[in-house]
Amino acid sequence: MNDEKIREKTQKTAQKLFGKGAKIKPPYLLWKDFDRDLANDFSMFITGNLYSRSVLTLPERQMVACAVLAAIRAGDELRLHVNAALNVGCDRRKLAETFFQVATYAGMPAVNEALDVYRDVLKQRGEWPIK
Amino acid sequence: MNDEKIREKTQKTAQKLFGKGAKIKPPYLLWKDFDRDLANDFSMFITGNLYSRSVLTLPERQMVACAVLAAIRAGDELRLHVNAALNVGCDRRKLAETFFQVATYAGMPAVNEALDVYRDVLKQRGEWPIK
Amino acid sequence: MNDEKIREKTQKTAQKLFGKGAKIKPPYLLWKDFDRDLANDFSMFITGNLYSRSVLTLPERQMVACAVLAAIRAGDELRLHVNAALNVGCDRRKLAETFFQVATYAGMPAVNEALDVYRDVLKQRGEWPIK
Amino acid sequence: MNDEKIREKTQKTAQKLFGKGAKIKPPYLLWKDFDRDLANDFSMFITGNLYSRSVLTLPERQMVACAVLAAIRAGDELRLHVNAALNVGCDRRKLAETFFQVATYAGMPAVNEALDVYRDVLKQRGEWPIK
Amino acid sequence: MNDEKIREKTQKTAQKLFGKGAKIKPPYLLWKDFDRDLANDFSMFITGNLYSRSVLTLPERQMVACAVLAAIRAGDELRLHVNAALNVGCDRRKLAETFFQVATYAGMPAVNEALDVYRDVLKQRGEWPIK
Amino acid sequence: MNDEKIREKTQKTAQKLFGKGAKIKPPYLLWKDFDRDLANDFSMFITGNLYSRSVLTLPERQMVACAVLAAIRAGDELRLHVNAALNVGCDRRKLAETFFQVATYAGMPAVNEALDVYRDVLKQRGEWPIK
Repeated sequence: MNDEKIREKTQKTAQKLFGKGAKIKPPYLLWKDFDRDLANDFSMFITGNLYSRSVLTLPERQMVACAVLAAIRAGDELRLHVNAALNVGCDRRKLAETFFQVATYAGMPAVNEALDVYRDVLKQRGEWPIK
Repeated sequence: MNDEKIREKTQKTAQKLFGKGAKIKPPYLLWKDFDRDLANDFSMFITGNLYSRSVLTLPERQMVACAVLAAIRAGDELRLHVNAALNVGCDRRKLAETFFQVATYAGMPAVNEALDVYRDVLKQRGEWPIK
Repeated sequence: MNDEKIREKTQKTAQKLFGKGAKIKPPYLLWKDFDRDLANDFSMFITGNLYSRSVLTLPERQMVACAVLAAIRAGDELRLHVNAALNVGCDRRKLAETFFQVATYAGMPAVNEALDVYRDVLKQRGEWPIK
Repeated sequence: MNDEKIREKTQKTAQKLFGKGAKIKPPYLLWKDFDRDLANDFSMFITGNLYSRSVLTLPERQMVACAVLAAIRAGDELRLHVNAALNVGCDRRKLAETFFQVATYAGMPAVNEALDVYRDVLKQRGEWPIK
Repeated sequence: MNDEKIREKTQKTAQKLFGKGAKIKPPYLLWKDFDRDLANDFSMFITGNLYSRSVLTLPERQMVACAVLAAIRAGDELRLHVNAALNVGCDRRKLAETFFQVATYAGMPAVNEALDVYRDVLKQRGEWPIK
Repeated sequence: MNDEKIREKTQKTAQKLFGKGAKIKPPYLLWKDFDRDLANDFSMFITGNLYSRSVLTLPERQMVACAVLAAIRAGDELRLHVNAALNVGCDRRKLAETFFQVATYAGMPAVNEALDVYRDVLKQRGEWPIK
């Protein structure tokens, strides 16, 4: 796929994932602050390529992202991806259930941090409590 | 839910997950070797309760399990759960794609270990290569 | 053990562990915010069953909890469990020594985060410095 | 404490911890293969100083070591320290119970790897099953 | 090396690493709050011995420290060591590049946390943006 | 940079890093077994782009890789990168020293696993002991 097309996909997918909801600074801006080229390279690889592939749908990808970020307790990153999951229509209850299930593989600290971030993001979006 | 019903669910769900495919010793036997009561408690809580809930389907749960175990690089546990994922009908290509996506959150060591386990389990099941 | 008895044990043990000292929101309330049934299941399994067993005394269990949470750098969870450790009478100096020993297995970041949380909890309880 | 005394303590403590049971290559030999001075420095700091302090008894220290190494899934290191725990008289059932408790903070992969190592070491020592 | 000489080296090296730049509480003070002897032991072992060895130069050691702390996402510890890296003259761009490279082994959460800490420390030092 | 040039850089850099020494299966072949396109994308991004940048030299990059992989205890991945480090001329003693230094941030399990892999690779290359 040529550069022009990837740039287009990147923006489209980024918009779907990060375009609304809770106000969270996109990591892309942080990368750009250090190295404009690398920032674009990472952005096009992750969002323009990986995230735009169709083998998994965007909601499926976001469920994976949230489960993993919960398990490794990357709270700040999880915040960004929970918001993205909600933006692309992930089922609210399935997401909560996923966090509870993480207990089996990573213990309660991971569950507690994830649910705490999740509840906070839902509140910021005015979608709390889950109906 | 009373004890009798949970025991029944536990066996049913365990059978669906672990009943065929690659030959892998169930952790339950290891727990039982140390403490019969605790083994049953853990088994009924994890498999009889969490895994038997319907908020997430068994295939959905297994995708979560595999993504997380790949990210935290728990290779032995992943082996068990990849086999279970295949037993309950997870899509083979979506599973591979999930492992590649883990790169974004946990780096390449996690991806490489996961794909290595996955390929090995598929071979053991006579399902390699993925068609 | 029947449900009624487990509920009783859960409350008794929870009271001993979390009933006083530093004001920390119990994770149980966070779980309940998402799923009342799961919250009770987790609570009864962890606190009503595991934590109420006599193979390890409550102080012994809390020493384990603190050592592990320090090593995996789960600061928020550690705060809850350090306070619980002090509530059930863990020796203050042995607890500090445990955190220093964690250096051997998990390095200095783990030690520093743990001691920082520990000192803060002791201050909140009006028990600083350790006599 | 002067160098002569530390050397003496190091050997005494090392003997108590690692002097019998399952045959496991001491890490000290690995360090020495690369840098004799650093090997001695590490040995005297960890075994001669930390491990020889009396704030925690040797059995208490080994319980901490085992809990932490189980939680971070450092299987090879755990093997060494489980054997040491048994050498200094740790209660066999309390040790098993500790591994089960780790589930709460680090999930089942940690528990399964730890119990697997523990059972294996007990077998090597001719102490299986636990009476 | 005798005690007197180690004490001297410790102070000299500590001054080079932590003597200026962003205001960050040295962990040594936290250790001392709990156990004066252990604090000195750790300080002399880490800073007086390991950090004062010449096999790696101080800038080389700091690059290692920063890469590792970024990968294990120990943000507070990284803050201290990034500041130290800049104090001993590490190349600003090479440090940023190192953080980006960590993506390959530990994923984006590690990169994002590290760059965020790095940018913040550079701002505190009045050295932002990197020229 | 256009596709043709990246492919060229990828092969050149891959050859320098992985072209000789211990026989280790390149992860690229594992990725290719699952998805040819993704394999190439990852390869060109990691090796063709990141690894071919000049901000850090190849030896500097490999020192970072080894330090990080040691700290997160990714033994298999470390094997590949230690061999690559030696291929691009990293100083043998500085590499050993780096592994010892990892103790400060990640504890002894990380050091022991890393030195064990390092010694093994040096033996496979006929470069043991280090002169």
